[in-house]
Amino acid sequence: MVKKNIILNVVGFILIMEGFFMLLGIPFSLYFDDNDIGILLVSGLGTSLIGLLLFLITKNKDDDIRKREGYIIVSISWIVMSAFGAIPFVLHGSIPSYTDAFFETMSGFTTTGASILNDIESLPHGLLFWRSITQWLGGMGMIVLSLAILPILGIGGMQLFVAEVPGPTKDKLHPRVRETAMRLWGIYVLFTLLETLLLIIGGMTFFDAICHSFTTMATGGFSTKQSSIAFYQSPFIHYVIIVFMFIAGTNFALLYHVLHGKIGNLKDNDEFKFYTFIVLFWTIVISATLYFANYGGVEISFRDSLFQVVSIITTTGFVTADYEVWGTFLLLIFFLLLFSGSCAGSTGGSIKVVRHYLLLKNSLLELRRLIHPRAIIPVRFNKHSVSQDIVSNILAFFLFYMFIFILGSIIMSLLGMDFLSAIGSVATSLGNVGPAIGSVGPTDNFANVPTIGKWVLSFLMLMGRLELFTILVIFSPAFWKS
Amino acid sequence: MVKKNIILNVVGFILIMEGFFMLLGIPFSLYFDDNDIGILLVSGLGTSLIGLLLFLITKNKDDDIRKREGYIIVSISWIVMSAFGAIPFVLHGSIPSYTDAFFETMSGFTTTGASILNDIESLPHGLLFWRSITQWLGGMGMIVLSLAILPILGIGGMQLFVAEVPGPTKDKLHPRVRETAMRLWGIYVLFTLLETLLLIIGGMTFFDAICHSFTTMATGGFSTKQSSIAFYQSPFIHYVIIVFMFIAGTNFALLYHVLHGKIGNLKDNDEFKFYTFIVLFWTIVISATLYFANYGGVEISFRDSLFQVVSIITTTGFVTADYEVWGTFLLLIFFLLLFSGSCAGSTGGSIKVVRHYLLLKNSLLELRRLIHPRAIIPVRFNKHSVSQDIVSNILAFFLFYMFIFILGSIIMSLLGMDFLSAIGSVATSLGNVGPAIGSVGPTDNFANVPTIGKWVLSFLMLMGRLELFTILVIFSPAFWKS
Repeated sequence: MVKKNIILNVVGFILIMEGFFMLLGIPFSLYFDDNDIGILLVSGLGTSLIGLLLFLITKNKDDDIRKREGYIIVSISWIVMSAFGAIPFVLHGSIPSYTDAFFETMSGFTTTGASILNDIESLPHGLLFWRSITQWLGGMGMIVLSLAILPILGIGGMQLFVAEVPGPTKDKLHPRVRETAMRLWGIYVLFTLLETLLLIIGGMTFFDAICHSFTTMATGGFSTKQSSIAFYQSPFIHYVIIVFMFIAGTNFALLYHVLHGKIGNLKDNDEFKFYTFIVLFWTIVISATLYFANYGGVEISFRDSLFQVVSIITTTGFVTADYEVWGTFLLLIFFLLLFSGSCAGSTGGSIKVVRHYLLLKNSLLELRRLIHPRAIIPVRFNKHSVSQDIVSNILAFFLFYMFIFILGSIIMSLLGMDFLSAIGSVATSLGNVGPAIGSVGPTDNFANVPTIGKWVLSFLMLMGRLELFTILVIFSPAFWKS
Repeated sequence: MVKKNIILNVVGFILIMEGFFMLLGIPFSLYFDDNDIGILLVSGLGTSLIGLLLFLITKNKDDDIRKREGYIIVSISWIVMSAFGAIPFVLHGSIPSYTDAFFETMSGFTTTGASILNDIESLPHGLLFWRSITQWLGGMGMIVLSLAILPILGIGGMQLFVAEVPGPTKDKLHPRVRETAMRLWGIYVLFTLLETLLLIIGGMTFFDAICHSFTTMATGGFSTKQSSIAFYQSPFIHYVIIVFMFIAGTNFALLYHVLHGKIGNLKDNDEFKFYTFIVLFWTIVISATLYFANYGGVEISFRDSLFQVVSIITTTGFVTADYEVWGTFLLLIFFLLLFSGSCAGSTGGSIKVVRHYLLLKNSLLELRRLIHPRAIIPVRFNKHSVSQDIVSNILAFFLFYMFIFILGSIIMSLLGMDFLSAIGSVATSLGNVGPAIGSVGPTDNFANVPTIGKWVLSFLMLMGRLELFTILVIFSPAFWKS
């Protein structure tokens, strides 16, 4: 039996918090004399009030959250947050269609960054702030989810990282989650403030700086400018954002240790090394291709390559150049990078480096197993043997990922999208990246996707964000049986 | 140490046989008064003579073929056969470039069916016969390979079928291979003759009937007509070819049992049932889509769908209609079907139904394993538990397949092919299908692929045909170490 009470109780608590965060944009709207103050006030207080009522009626002494409730709470939270988070956009009229507003907000909370807005700069500052903060909150949720909750739920090989995070490992989620969250959020806030400061130094306004820092650290990619980071000419700003995207794509448990003086951990971490290698490898390949195709000087070829590579691999989705005009070869590379992802335990989405690393290693070992059929040859990661259960789990994740990608592409093509746009929109939504290829490339947006398609893509963002299994488990008959 | 002698000895024997088969087209050329008789005579006798010399100098008492030699013999055989098989085309001048001739012949022996010919009907009958027979021989080789040799080499889950094939299971390859081969070739020849007869009844000339039967049973897809089976208007011919493509896509060990009265085996065979299901499912979906898009009447919508679906799934590659003009949705479906394949132990290529079946089942079970982490839940196939080793082997196969597909696509895009043509040409070559999408669709050919691209695709056909691992193992350092 699933305990409905505790689920609704947690959802209530989350809504209280969400309403509070909606109000945070009001000072900006006051300062810029915008017309969204009333809307934010009503939406924020309304959301908190509904949350409070829900919280109070479901208050109960039995607050043990088991795995079963864990799956449901995690899935429902993201949906409810998006459902309520969309309200201010609709009430204000800047996004008249609820479908569009839900898509935009789900894209926010899942830190995807795909947008349906045709004129971002026309939005009032309070709403823009709320839009940015949805990503920041989504990133915050993701850190806790990936480092404290998903490993306990046994999802997608995330167990690999449990040992790295300080804290007790009881079967009850509460104490562990709270402790881990506090430690890691400290880092998250710290880097957000640091980036804000650097962006201001680089010439951004305080408002733009904080919004972009929110969406960088969340690997979200929402910008306050229609042309994204291409709006800013300053190489300094580009490099600052590159560095912080890269940091945001790193395992926060690893960052925690590094900040506590254990810098050697970086060197011993197979995932971080592979992550760095992939970023450098593709940056060099793409820089060289651009440079020899007379794209420009060495620096601009390098910077535009590095920015786009880090942006796509970390699943941020900021843009300073349009890779769709860089030729078929690079278009294919960027399409493939939608499936990369950065480190597990970061705010990034997609398949993630650790899974690629283990799958690659396991496949190569299979050749050795063929030659020596009687030998037992385990996969090693960070100097430990990885159990066959975890490898099997990761393989299942990869296959589901491909299966959902294919199914999604079929649906989008049925809705009338062309081949490249169909596979691109699905890959970028499932990977929580943002820009894709075809008609949803880096300089386009998702406004013209058919209505049903927007709901499909919203669902795919959620699937991807929750590492597939959280949702898949709920849909499996075995979950409801015992 | 690899025993070079025995490898060269087997290659010598294969060349003797190949030369003999080259001569078989001469009666047709005599009858039709063609100009390729001398060429076939020289090529055939020359090839046999070189084979004989090689065979005699390497004759040796120690004729034990171990696994190690097995991998090399299998890989080298296909390469040497293609290298020599290309000669008559070049000597005659109907394919002046050796690259093109090698591509065409490799496409033949791997039963792919991708062609560089712009005017097939202009070729003399002897050469056309040789072209068809390369596929028939390739199919013959494949039956033995997949049911007798690869299982012993431990490749790609093929061990699953060992139990089904009658014959001894010693570590030495010789006796097992010979016995299995004889039994299964009987079926192969029988069906080839039966199809020839039916095609003649349907109105084909004897020459066209036998050539098309060769390439149907091999799931090859070479036609003696430039427009493939679309040349024939007769629904009877279409349905005959559909039936025999479907049979050729079935496990020959299963066919053996069915022909010996055990018809119930069809019902108990999970792979055959899944194969039938996939064919029917996609035929219904595509028929309905075509019918409601006013493609034509029920029968023509059904027949064109069924033909194309069976042709692509069995990796034959015959064409009666151009699915490239059927809209994005169906284009995507046909692209995806390039990765399907039919049953293991058939003459078909690609990933194959059994692997999809086991991967799908294993992934679904992973959800149950998440909910019951302590339970041991094995995958079941044909009422038996499948060992984790085999599942792991199949998973590695799938990942390598995807990896090679991606790498191949990158290379083809680097050579200047557009996105769809790049991924299409690689998918169809690796899957040994024939037609693809983009500029290498069902009504196009491979003539305009860049030269390097033709060699890359030839290599991919070989990789696909030999179930990847045969080649990959040879390239792995561990193979040469001990």
